[in-house]
Amino acid sequence: MAVGGLGQVDQTYDGSKLRVGILHARWNSKIIEALVAGAKAKLLQFGVAEENIIIETVPGSFELPYGSKLFVDKYKRLGKPLDAVIPIGVLIKGSTMHFEYICDSVTHQLMKLNFELGLPVIFGVLTCLTDEQAEARAGLIEGKMHNHGEDWGAAAVEMALKFN
Amino acid sequence: MAVGGLGQVDQTYDGSKLRVGILHARWNSKIIEALVAGAKAKLLQFGVAEENIIIETVPGSFELPYGSKLFVDKYKRLGKPLDAVIPIGVLIKGSTMHFEYICDSVTHQLMKLNFELGLPVIFGVLTCLTDEQAEARAGLIEGKMHNHGEDWGAAAVEMALKFN
Amino acid sequence: MAVGGLGQVDQTYDGSKLRVGILHARWNSKIIEALVAGAKAKLLQFGVAEENIIIETVPGSFELPYGSKLFVDKYKRLGKPLDAVIPIGVLIKGSTMHFEYICDSVTHQLMKLNFELGLPVIFGVLTCLTDEQAEARAGLIEGKMHNHGEDWGAAAVEMALKFN
Amino acid sequence: MAVGGLGQVDQTYDGSKLRVGILHARWNSKIIEALVAGAKAKLLQFGVAEENIIIETVPGSFELPYGSKLFVDKYKRLGKPLDAVIPIGVLIKGSTMHFEYICDSVTHQLMKLNFELGLPVIFGVLTCLTDEQAEARAGLIEGKMHNHGEDWGAAAVEMALKFN
Amino acid sequence: MAVGGLGQVDQTYDGSKLRVGILHARWNSKIIEALVAGAKAKLLQFGVAEENIIIETVPGSFELPYGSKLFVDKYKRLGKPLDAVIPIGVLIKGSTMHFEYICDSVTHQLMKLNFELGLPVIFGVLTCLTDEQAEARAGLIEGKMHNHGEDWGAAAVEMALKFN
Repeated sequence: MAVGGLGQVDQTYDGSKLRVGILHARWNSKIIEALVAGAKAKLLQFGVAEENIIIETVPGSFELPYGSKLFVDKYKRLGKPLDAVIPIGVLIKGSTMHFEYICDSVTHQLMKLNFELGLPVIFGVLTCLTDEQAEARAGLIEGKMHNHGEDWGAAAVEMALKFN
Repeated sequence: MAVGGLGQVDQTYDGSKLRVGILHARWNSKIIEALVAGAKAKLLQFGVAEENIIIETVPGSFELPYGSKLFVDKYKRLGKPLDAVIPIGVLIKGSTMHFEYICDSVTHQLMKLNFELGLPVIFGVLTCLTDEQAEARAGLIEGKMHNHGEDWGAAAVEMALKFN
Repeated sequence: MAVGGLGQVDQTYDGSKLRVGILHARWNSKIIEALVAGAKAKLLQFGVAEENIIIETVPGSFELPYGSKLFVDKYKRLGKPLDAVIPIGVLIKGSTMHFEYICDSVTHQLMKLNFELGLPVIFGVLTCLTDEQAEARAGLIEGKMHNHGEDWGAAAVEMALKFN
Repeated sequence: MAVGGLGQVDQTYDGSKLRVGILHARWNSKIIEALVAGAKAKLLQFGVAEENIIIETVPGSFELPYGSKLFVDKYKRLGKPLDAVIPIGVLIKGSTMHFEYICDSVTHQLMKLNFELGLPVIFGVLTCLTDEQAEARAGLIEGKMHNHGEDWGAAAVEMALKFN
Repeated sequence: MAVGGLGQVDQTYDGSKLRVGILHARWNSKIIEALVAGAKAKLLQFGVAEENIIIETVPGSFELPYGSKLFVDKYKRLGKPLDAVIPIGVLIKGSTMHFEYICDSVTHQLMKLNFELGLPVIFGVLTCLTDEQAEARAGLIEGKMHNHGEDWGAAAVEMALKFN
């Protein structure tokens, strides 16, 4: 898909009252870390306080949807409800069909999760055919693409505030 | 698919009592703008008042379904309920599998959204393999196709009125 | 798929007490009209009264599932509840991926609609790769296939009566 | 998929208290009949009484999920509730995309039906690319495969009893 | 997909209070047994008591989702509720389309099952194109991959404890 548009926000948003959860898988960790850093940097730039950016992990991408639910429930119980959650995973095509079935079921469930949780769930999952594609989208290949985590951070703030 | 039939309405509809929301993604913005203009023009032609055509945006197409729900909920809260919503996005095949998973999950959720929101949710998403395909369907290539946004505007009015 | 079996009913059904709705899209209208005529002819043959065959339209196939719900709801409100609904659409592969996403989401939602509406929703959608395939299945190419609309009419009557 | 394992039950089950419904489509009827016979033979072998094996039909495979619900509901109303249902259909790839969309929507809905009906719904649907593949899986080609209907009969008894 | 990351837990978890169910299909049994043994070994290593690792079977992978529900319900009734369940199956591509439809429906339903059961349901299903791919992922080909069952055992413990 053409790249460059998603990061352009339509207006300034004040994220200073928001609490945002980032839940990331631990596979392909170098790429994941860059994406998490990109998301966090953008959240900070939009005024989200550092202590209100809560980062947690699950083993793999299949755990992202239910993990997001448990994550959101936990912070509700703690009296510190999240206003948006950014599940982050990096899936790369392998020799079996694992990639296809995981990508498909995770994407569908993250989509539905917006409705089940009643808060924005951003699609922070890369579904790549090669390692290099994933690295480029994490901003790890100089002169190529920007870090998509930034887009996800911006989307979380916008979606949490826009329709209030 | 053969083109030309969708815009032919079966009868005249009086949209003067309707309030219609257009929610569009901001990727591929030139094409999106043309589609939004086409939808709006058709709504006006069917008698929808300009102040009753409400246009809002979300970052990308993945945000269209939940954004549509938030959009509809907001205008219900404001005492100005929408009678139909037209989510508009342009997805173009890239080198990863992002296109496939986003198209699939967005289409399924927009379909279900009709039932969850209890109002017509028009499928205003182009799922193209090339930029040119998308431009043609936005009426941007002279002598090729008509602007599909017009079909979506017409469908919104018809579906909002037909079974009342 | 091998052709010829679906139209063979397992026994005679008396449709004289039934009210059946046919909801068709308006794309590819020549083919649609033939299919609608085939379904209607079979309903009449099974004893459904002409005034109890109610035909309505929506713009395209994406509107068939939610349109079917609105159609069913309307006739319930009017005190003339439908006993079965036959959504009819003709989808033909084009150059974008629109065909695939519409076919997939429409099929899944029509399947679920049986359960949500609590009445038989027949799958009257052709998902063809060429115009000729669709014409053949509408009985428009002499000496080739029978009109599949007939099968849908027969299935509607059988499914509306069989498990009572 | 490698063949041979499914029919091996883990222990003996006493089906003498069970009532099992077989619902089959009527397309590709020679193959269907063999599969139904295989399922029935295995049910009898596990002690299910012949009068408690109830066989009913629907036109095509798309009707299997909602037909199964109507079938189960009917026998509940009659005071003879089913303990498991085996929907049987044979889908064979043709020249349009009908095969793909029917297979996909039927499989998903039969899966969900286990949960909606609260009883085992066995996947008795062959999704074949050729007639010969279907015949082999119905035990109709000597020296090739066993009749898969037997596996479905065994699975129905096991799933109806195992977790009580 | 790149291998090696999933087994790396983020911290030590004390599984000594947990009860974990393993439900496995009986197809491709040599590979299944290795995966079950790998999952069990990891559960024991995390402190889950041997008597709290409950192993049960279903005929094939299609039975895993509903079987998991029956399994969880049974142990709730027995007053020994499970804290997580690991459904294990091995699907290998054959000549028909059975593999694709089973993989797809099972993956989606196991994903949803996390939410329906309110406890972690680990994705212990291999979706392979060849026997050798499955053997490698079960740790049966020396010098190739590790036993993926270990990852599933670790994920079960982590997901059962992490968000409490």
